[in-house]
Amino acid sequence: MSKIKTVTPRLFRIPLDEVLVDAKHGDHTHFEVITVTITTEDGLTGTGYTYTGGKGGQAILAMLTYDFCDWLIGQDARDIAAIYDDMQWHVHYVARGGIASFAMSAIDIALWDLRGKREDAPLWRMTGGADRTCRAYCGGIDLGYTEAKLLESVKGYVTRGFDGVKIKLGRSHDEDIARIKAVREAIGPDVTFMVDANYSLSVEAAIALSKAMEPFDITWFEEPIDPDDFEGYAVVADATSVPLAMGENLHTIHEFRRAFAHSKLSYIQPDASNCGGITGWLSVARAAAVRGIPVCSHGMQELHVGLVSAQPNAGWIEVHSFPIDRYTTRPLVVENHRAVAADTAGTGVVFDWDMLEQSHDPK
Amino acid sequence: MSKIKTVTPRLFRIPLDEVLVDAKHGDHTHFEVITVTITTEDGLTGTGYTYTGGKGGQAILAMLTYDFCDWLIGQDARDIAAIYDDMQWHVHYVARGGIASFAMSAIDIALWDLRGKREDAPLWRMTGGADRTCRAYCGGIDLGYTEAKLLESVKGYVTRGFDGVKIKLGRSHDEDIARIKAVREAIGPDVTFMVDANYSLSVEAAIALSKAMEPFDITWFEEPIDPDDFEGYAVVADATSVPLAMGENLHTIHEFRRAFAHSKLSYIQPDASNCGGITGWLSVARAAAVRGIPVCSHGMQELHVGLVSAQPNAGWIEVHSFPIDRYTTRPLVVENHRAVAADTAGTGVVFDWDMLEQSHDPK
Ligand SMILES: [Mg+2]
Ligand SMILES: [Mg+2]
Repeated sequence: MSKIKTVTPRLFRIPLDEVLVDAKHGDHTHFEVITVTITTEDGLTGTGYTYTGGKGGQAILAMLTYDFCDWLIGQDARDIAAIYDDMQWHVHYVARGGIASFAMSAIDIALWDLRGKREDAPLWRMTGGADRTCRAYCGGIDLGYTEAKLLESVKGYVTRGFDGVKIKLGRSHDEDIARIKAVREAIGPDVTFMVDANYSLSVEAAIALSKAMEPFDITWFEEPIDPDDFEGYAVVADATSVPLAMGENLHTIHEFRRAFAHSKLSYIQPDASNCGGITGWLSVARAAAVRGIPVCSHGMQELHVGLVSAQPNAGWIEVHSFPIDRYTTRPLVVENHRAVAADTAGTGVVFDWDMLEQSHDPK
Repeated sequence: MSKIKTVTPRLFRIPLDEVLVDAKHGDHTHFEVITVTITTEDGLTGTGYTYTGGKGGQAILAMLTYDFCDWLIGQDARDIAAIYDDMQWHVHYVARGGIASFAMSAIDIALWDLRGKREDAPLWRMTGGADRTCRAYCGGIDLGYTEAKLLESVKGYVTRGFDGVKIKLGRSHDEDIARIKAVREAIGPDVTFMVDANYSLSVEAAIALSKAMEPFDITWFEEPIDPDDFEGYAVVADATSVPLAMGENLHTIHEFRRAFAHSKLSYIQPDASNCGGITGWLSVARAAAVRGIPVCSHGMQELHVGLVSAQPNAGWIEVHSFPIDRYTTRPLVVENHRAVAADTAGTGVVFDWDMLEQSHDPK
């Protein structure tokens, strides 16, 4: 027994260096990091977290504070799978998915951090151990950039040691294709290139855009259409040779099951911060492996590097424009174009609390 | 233009008269009512609300407070459909469904209350006008009751003027059937009788129980299995002559679409407090009408009476064990076994704020 003694949630609202724009979320001026620190009676401390694009953080904090903190006290922190299951039913009426998935994710990650510390095991070993490194690409929230700034930005990724880049789509059809062409010319034929429309297109527009991007060796077209239109993805997939990807907006295993069953995806991109933490992410990774689908990630590269590296069906991690890892003691390490997972006990994500506090910008 | 001037959310946590038990939610000791009061610059006031079984209320309040209140100020309160749509995208990344659907529902209901006051129109007229009355049944959260107390309870519903009753299932197969038999004998052949397992059964157990209840003229079997297992409902439906119903746990139009497409339901039970308010409820009602499915409701009878009565495909309203209407100036009116909608401008739901405040039991 490793009895949970205290559960402390915290919210930090952190300004971005510049306002970032994509097709559907409007202006991003801040991101929110919601942390949960759990201590156990045998003297261990673990921290989990989730994040948002600037909305919903207070609701996540409230759910943690009022519905989960007291409820967790006294439970055995080693019972990760049972706690995961119980959490789902505990708030089922006001869930599933959405805010509750973000809250549960933070708790689950804290429990895995505790497990790693208890067993002196790093995340990549606990969650599969296939490898300690994985492929990584930089994903810009760059729809608002001029073409000149966009090219400067993607070339910057390559200079920093990455061999994969992703840009946002969602301007006009012609502008989107012009930007794709310009980026492909700028990065050359050997850099992996993905695009992301943040579900801003109709099925018809997505098909037209897919076909028009076929000459540019696009590794995947991410979220062309509404993530709730599972069958629509299959319609797009059938009409084009460009592979499809999604997952950042799927928050329950049920949603992932529907995507696997109906959407003809070539890549899946679960985000442990919103699909049930490490437990939820691993259940998606395993379902993907059965189907021969590479598992990728969305956001928080500092954690996903350990998860993706560990999988036999590892895809790419996204290095996201929200620089959460700048507020940790170990920003993402890249060697020979590959991201390298931490080898320390726990998740490997250790926050610089002073820096979080100093950066916090309350509304 | 009817510019929104103020938006005031409030949370009340109200003790129940007795602890109520069903198969999946554990003990209910309280329910929460979260209200939103909107005033406009042209001098109108409207109130909307949502409710929970005791969890999630603070998260709903936080989302209203931090993500929606300021955002609504200055918008035209008459643009109900546009605001509804914009709300979905505004919090899309931390939604869909769950807490966000509850928060948006409260806002949408307030906007309809304003519309009714502006147009001097009651809810049943604004939302279809087919009738001012509808069928109604009492639904007990009575799984913890002894058989004697259960029979006393259902006979009490009939004494109060209702000709429909619903009981909870989720004990053993044999106990469930014994209770069904006893209730049918107690109420006689002419009272409508439904049962509700709160998604506690496997597909196999649900089929066995359905078949065993066939002799007792059961109008519907509600939530036999996990509401996320849309295809499983069809498997149960195909194996039995007992009609199926669900809806209280479907929080987005996408979930309802999947239920209509895959679940072979005979009745649909949207709850305006968690599926997008009146706008969301009406979109479900219309989708049901197209398919010839009667639209029913879950909870808050004081509001749903107007909505269900107004539909050409009206089913039954549930008179729920959470007595929200006790905290209003017009508890549900029943005449000749039918529930009667308010004929006053707005939703017809006017809270007794003093009573809510006096009953509020903060954690
Ligand atoms: Mg994306
Ligand atoms: Mg029910």
